[in-house]
Amino acid sequence: MGGKYNRGMSVPDTASILLSRPLTSDEYYKTAMLGWMTELLQAFFLVSDDIMDSSITRRGSPCWYRQPNVGMIALNDAFMLEASIYLLLKQHYRSHPSYLGFIELFHEVTFQTEIGQECDLLTAPEDVVDLSQFSIQKHSFIVIYKTAYYSFYLPVALALHYLDLATESNLKQAHDILIPLGEYFQIQDDYLDAYGSPEVIGKVGTDILDNKCSWMINKALDLATPEQRHILDDCYGRKDGAKEAEVKKIYQELQLERVYQEYEERAVGEIKARIANIDEETGLKKQVFESFLAKIYKRSK
Amino acid sequence: MGGKYNRGMSVPDTASILLSRPLTSDEYYKTAMLGWMTELLQAFFLVSDDIMDSSITRRGSPCWYRQPNVGMIALNDAFMLEASIYLLLKQHYRSHPSYLGFIELFHEVTFQTEIGQECDLLTAPEDVVDLSQFSIQKHSFIVIYKTAYYSFYLPVALALHYLDLATESNLKQAHDILIPLGEYFQIQDDYLDAYGSPEVIGKVGTDILDNKCSWMINKALDLATPEQRHILDDCYGRKDGAKEAEVKKIYQELQLERVYQEYEERAVGEIKARIANIDEETGLKKQVFESFLAKIYKRSK
Repeated sequence: MGGKYNRGMSVPDTASILLSRPLTSDEYYKTAMLGWMTELLQAFFLVSDDIMDSSITRRGSPCWYRQPNVGMIALNDAFMLEASIYLLLKQHYRSHPSYLGFIELFHEVTFQTEIGQECDLLTAPEDVVDLSQFSIQKHSFIVIYKTAYYSFYLPVALALHYLDLATESNLKQAHDILIPLGEYFQIQDDYLDAYGSPEVIGKVGTDILDNKCSWMINKALDLATPEQRHILDDCYGRKDGAKEAEVKKIYQELQLERVYQEYEERAVGEIKARIANIDEETGLKKQVFESFLAKIYKRSK
Repeated sequence: MGGKYNRGMSVPDTASILLSRPLTSDEYYKTAMLGWMTELLQAFFLVSDDIMDSSITRRGSPCWYRQPNVGMIALNDAFMLEASIYLLLKQHYRSHPSYLGFIELFHEVTFQTEIGQECDLLTAPEDVVDLSQFSIQKHSFIVIYKTAYYSFYLPVALALHYLDLATESNLKQAHDILIPLGEYFQIQDDYLDAYGSPEVIGKVGTDILDNKCSWMINKALDLATPEQRHILDDCYGRKDGAKEAEVKKIYQELQLERVYQEYEERAVGEIKARIANIDEETGLKKQVFESFLAKIYKRSK
């Protein structure tokens, strides 16, 4: 367990904003149930991602598959975490008008996340470094599919379905803000991995050591001179602290901190413009998105 | 690929028997599509089971996760095999009256199979031999959940839904025959692992070496004297050909071949009695089940 339950909490939070009032106890129960389903989906992804990535720890403890007597049974546990979403939906939402909508939404978002994970695994295997596989376009595809759909679009789409507000137009407006917002969130994550203070973000960044297809390396590849590119090819993803320092030195030379800040201002500006354009006539509320953005903008962890 | 596609083919085969005529080309297309979904479900299970069991080969070739450049990506591939079932359902069955019924059936059967796999993994880990964990009741639970639902009940239930014949009564009658039939099939499989000719079944049985919770060992545990039990505890699941031979010797002493044949006659007799009792008034046909039974009874591979 552990974690901040941001995704789970955003379902009741969003529903409350859409209704412009606190939730009744029944509304809270039902939307928190949907929130737990987003957490179950995330648990399914994290338990299996840790196996795929041979990760050692998750949230400061050994990963589930590394616990005593678990091992590869963790894989089947992950499947059952996923299956429990549909058990809960059937138990609590069978008579809701959006029952099928909920199911199809979870199917769709699950598949999108798996597509993103597949692309990430094929682009950046931990043991084969080939930076020619990387590109800022591929990075954008990976973070949108692997993270933005399930972390940002899913909770809001669930709240819209819950309140019978899931019209095609409302879903599309939410999508067109939340997907760029999720991409911005992940790029910020990539930036914090390289530039955040370990005391603040609570972990030491390892993206360079782990050959991650991060926004930072993709920006560096875009801006590097042939000499710098040569060093990046030689030093990225090598499990070697000295080579990691070489890469970080090039990040400094290329002023990636400034490049990130320029990206952030531009991205946030575009997201704010889209929020300003929202049509609130059919139940959507600007505040839903303002509240997401406020939690993310200029965060340091 | 490879495999016999028994599960997949039983969807159109069952539909044709239920209609008492050959399928039209459209009916064949639509029921074969459902058949492919059962094969996709099985592929999801087999790809991930091979990882969980550290298997070496599947159908004579290296398992998918052991293919070059695949490794743990196989896990995400398995997820996408599962997800593709719901993509195909949405693409081909969205306007079918049983669309939701198909989805719920796949969810239910997937979860049942995972429950069976979890029980199997916890009962018979490859590396910890503890025969006191085994029992014929647990064996029955494992084979019903892990195999019978998806291999026997699922294809027939799909054909019933396709033809709008999936009433509660028809599904229950089918269930009450196909689950015992699936249990019998798996017990036969366990028997053939010990007594089948490798030239005929196409593989050398390894259940004893692999500490499998097989029907044979459970029957042996039921019938063994304290001395025989001591040898079984000492020799079962030990990756040692001499110890395997000790176990086989006890199977001989206990005349498990005869015990199996008695079980088989009794089980088949009960299944035939249930088939004879089928109510054909509401669209079900005895021949559906007779045809399954004929493929299984006295098979040698």
